[in-house]
Amino acid sequence: MDAETKLIQRIARAIPSESGAGKGGRPTGGLRLGIGNDGAVLAPSGRTEWVLSCDAFLEGVHFLADRHPADSVGFKSLARATSDLAAMGAAPRYFLLTMALPLRRTGEWLDGFLQGMARASRQLGIRLIGGDTKRHASVAISITVLGEIARGRAVTRAGARLGDIVYVSGKLGCAELGLRMVKSGVLKRGKPGAGSEISLLKQHLYPRIRMKLGAWLAAHRIPSAMMDISDGLSTDLGRLCAASGVGARIWAERIPRVKLPEAQAGLLERLKLDPLQLALHGGDDYELVFTVPRRKVKQLRNAPDFADLTAIGEIERDNQVTLVGANGRATRLVSGGWDPFRKK
Amino acid sequence: MDAETKLIQRIARAIPSESGAGKGGRPTGGLRLGIGNDGAVLAPSGRTEWVLSCDAFLEGVHFLADRHPADSVGFKSLARATSDLAAMGAAPRYFLLTMALPLRRTGEWLDGFLQGMARASRQLGIRLIGGDTKRHASVAISITVLGEIARGRAVTRAGARLGDIVYVSGKLGCAELGLRMVKSGVLKRGKPGAGSEISLLKQHLYPRIRMKLGAWLAAHRIPSAMMDISDGLSTDLGRLCAASGVGARIWAERIPRVKLPEAQAGLLERLKLDPLQLALHGGDDYELVFTVPRRKVKQLRNAPDFADLTAIGEIERDNQVTLVGANGRATRLVSGGWDPFRKK
Repeated sequence: MDAETKLIQRIARAIPSESGAGKGGRPTGGLRLGIGNDGAVLAPSGRTEWVLSCDAFLEGVHFLADRHPADSVGFKSLARATSDLAAMGAAPRYFLLTMALPLRRTGEWLDGFLQGMARASRQLGIRLIGGDTKRHASVAISITVLGEIARGRAVTRAGARLGDIVYVSGKLGCAELGLRMVKSGVLKRGKPGAGSEISLLKQHLYPRIRMKLGAWLAAHRIPSAMMDISDGLSTDLGRLCAASGVGARIWAERIPRVKLPEAQAGLLERLKLDPLQLALHGGDDYELVFTVPRRKVKQLRNAPDFADLTAIGEIERDNQVTLVGANGRATRLVSGGWDPFRKK
Repeated sequence: MDAETKLIQRIARAIPSESGAGKGGRPTGGLRLGIGNDGAVLAPSGRTEWVLSCDAFLEGVHFLADRHPADSVGFKSLARATSDLAAMGAAPRYFLLTMALPLRRTGEWLDGFLQGMARASRQLGIRLIGGDTKRHASVAISITVLGEIARGRAVTRAGARLGDIVYVSGKLGCAELGLRMVKSGVLKRGKPGAGSEISLLKQHLYPRIRMKLGAWLAAHRIPSAMMDISDGLSTDLGRLCAASGVGARIWAERIPRVKLPEAQAGLLERLKLDPLQLALHGGDDYELVFTVPRRKVKQLRNAPDFADLTAIGEIERDNQVTLVGANGRATRLVSGGWDPFRKK
């Protein structure tokens, strides 16, 4: 057996995967043929729609192979790709994994990576059905995810209307704080440092994805527009507004942000970080930002994770995002999140 | 507008793409929502199946950004991904493009790349519906293709049976010869050299994909097993046999290979290349290898590209590929093609 085929079999054993070999050749769960072929074959029922998205996760850009634990790289690469399904309200079903690896990462490092990815796969209920493996000078991961949703229920970025309320889930800026901690050396040789700091690193290393919330919102047709916050609120809310042809006004005081316990309060000062700036511009949180017509706001009370939702502002006519400070002064909020192609 | 959004719009303008905005919100061609959202949304009819495959194309591994013309990189990355659809008999429909780029490749180089990809997209009838863009130290392309096929008609690697005839399309080894020519300096600063050599480089730079042949074979249920030759005949026929639980015996004299016109005959000698070895082990040809039950062989005469088909051997019980030389001696054919994870 050639080495590439062996590697594919090792991946398929480690990660919950689907060969599509249902009983009597009948497709199971909409899948006729899975991993181990030129392509995977889906046999859609015609009663649902399929959502497709892809996401790349690159050594030296999104993670440092010598600092970030291998299982975090595996977990996060799958979680962040799946977050795009949550953002549209689709239920995760299958994924394809494209991996480019140096030979020296095919041993222990790969085992750790696959362990983390297997954990994300089980948590998110998404199974491997194919992919591609290549040798490369550095680790490059590219994942295509497939989700399923009732006909016509996928939520896009483009439906926000004048007067809609802008909501976000969770606290923003946690992942960016984690990244800064790793860069400043808190995370050494792939292991988190002091126990109390592990929880701060969690959203950076093993992000929680808002699958249930996204699916519930879509199923109940509550949001007029929705997306996940992967590049920072200032960038992503700007994109939602641009796609909808509207603007937004948000209040700085309402934006849910990192609040550290007394014992760790010095950390922000040491790293010269401001919680509001982290919340406005920090990337990688994978929380949801969505807009809700006023008449539907009451229905939100039944949402999963309702306690984690915050109304931060509303949709305006103006084609820009305006931030109202604690002093009442309004300024234009410029995209300051993660934009890889901005010239510095 | 942020720089990433601008880049996405530039890509969507250059390449035939689909936003899914059909009249009155009705899905067109099975697509409800295309490029410019968190994910693309497919609205399958339920009458067909969808084939999904992905393929990575990496600078320094599969191409040299300073030697290979940018438009070849764009053309080939899409063509080779689409070849996996041909290999199963599916008709190409949509693709997602994940691109990691250094900033210095976002100007003229990207224009050339997009031009080549647009040409492949038109030739193959496959349209862009989404993707991901990232900044990176080197160019890394990952493409997910989607094809459509009648229910139950997708051809896999796993159906070859004792006595079936093994066919290949085209001449094998042409692409490998092209690669060796590029490496030896025939291709300088992204431009092919002498006119007569351009045709030799064609299958390496702008590979022809056997879409019509693959679709016709699948539609007429002729092959018992099929795949494309991307990693060399010795590797890929070995994979087809392993998936089918059989072996094969092929005749060296029958294998269609590179034959140079008198004027260029010296090239093979200069590069120390043997046409049979190129044909057995050279990668990147994207020709099809497939097996046909004897009773169906006659039907092949109506195949598109029939003149390009060659019977090279037959399926045996033995779990190996046997090569019979011109002298009648049989030897085991060991995988000698492109296997990125083999330790040298």
